[in-house]
Amino acid sequence: MRARDLLTAFPTVTLETPVAEAARLLADQGLPGLIVVDGDGLPISILPGTQVLRLAVPGYCQDDPALARVIDEAHADVFLRAVAGRTVREAMPRERRELPVTDPDATVLEVAALMARTHSPLAAVVEDGRLVGAVTLRTLLDRVLAA
Amino acid sequence: MRARDLLTAFPTVTLETPVAEAARLLADQGLPGLIVVDGDGLPISILPGTQVLRLAVPGYCQDDPALARVIDEAHADVFLRAVAGRTVREAMPRERRELPVTDPDATVLEVAALMARTHSPLAAVVEDGRLVGAVTLRTLLDRVLAA
Repeated sequence: MRARDLLTAFPTVTLETPVAEAARLLADQGLPGLIVVDGDGLPISILPGTQVLRLAVPGYCQDDPALARVIDEAHADVFLRAVAGRTVREAMPRERRELPVTDPDATVLEVAALMARTHSPLAAVVEDGRLVGAVTLRTLLDRVLAA
Repeated sequence: MRARDLLTAFPTVTLETPVAEAARLLADQGLPGLIVVDGDGLPISILPGTQVLRLAVPGYCQDDPALARVIDEAHADVFLRAVAGRTVREAMPRERRELPVTDPDATVLEVAALMARTHSPLAAVVEDGRLVGAVTLRTLLDRVLAA
């Protein structure tokens, strides 16, 4: 069993995708994260869902729970509207880390080790300079447990 | 909209739950993580799925991609069998971090800020010393986008 046997078609976003659209993709398709691609369609980042959420939460609420508490319920309900104009570019992590990107020949153990090491529930699979899909933690566990 | 309006019944595990069983729960129910409870049923940790996976990957493969690559496909397929006897206790993070635990009165913005801050796609909701359920990132985004 190789990465190619575990592939799922996976939507991608670019640095210019609005945050609200990225959030909708995550929610509608129940995705564990998003693959951010460059102009050539190659992954430049894999964003966990909580990273997209982080961009939607006002800065003053992110690190101080007390400040989030003073926003009344009516305003709290619509916090995502405030992200209008913000794009995925602003959700990109500042430091460069290892990306959970692999090739179709990777064994299931290699993919599992990659996900564990990068703390990513999602690995992008690239072949011949082209994104061919992704392996999710769920699919990987499903298939390994059935083996 | 408060945490109580976003609640999902959520399975729990204990420190004694075998890793294979925890992996099966994650896979079967497509959970973003697991709530680890103590003898009183109170959350002591929220484990992201990748943390459970980490426990299932042999130590020598975790940090060195080259070592995972030399394991042949047949052995890689069954790597999860090697976890027999290991329990969730071994998947617990060593450092103490803020837990994504909140109360039913938390607004949706408070829950979002908590998830973003703790990088957790899952927040446990505790009321009167009792776990009453969880809010998932997916449910939160669904409801906020519909607001």
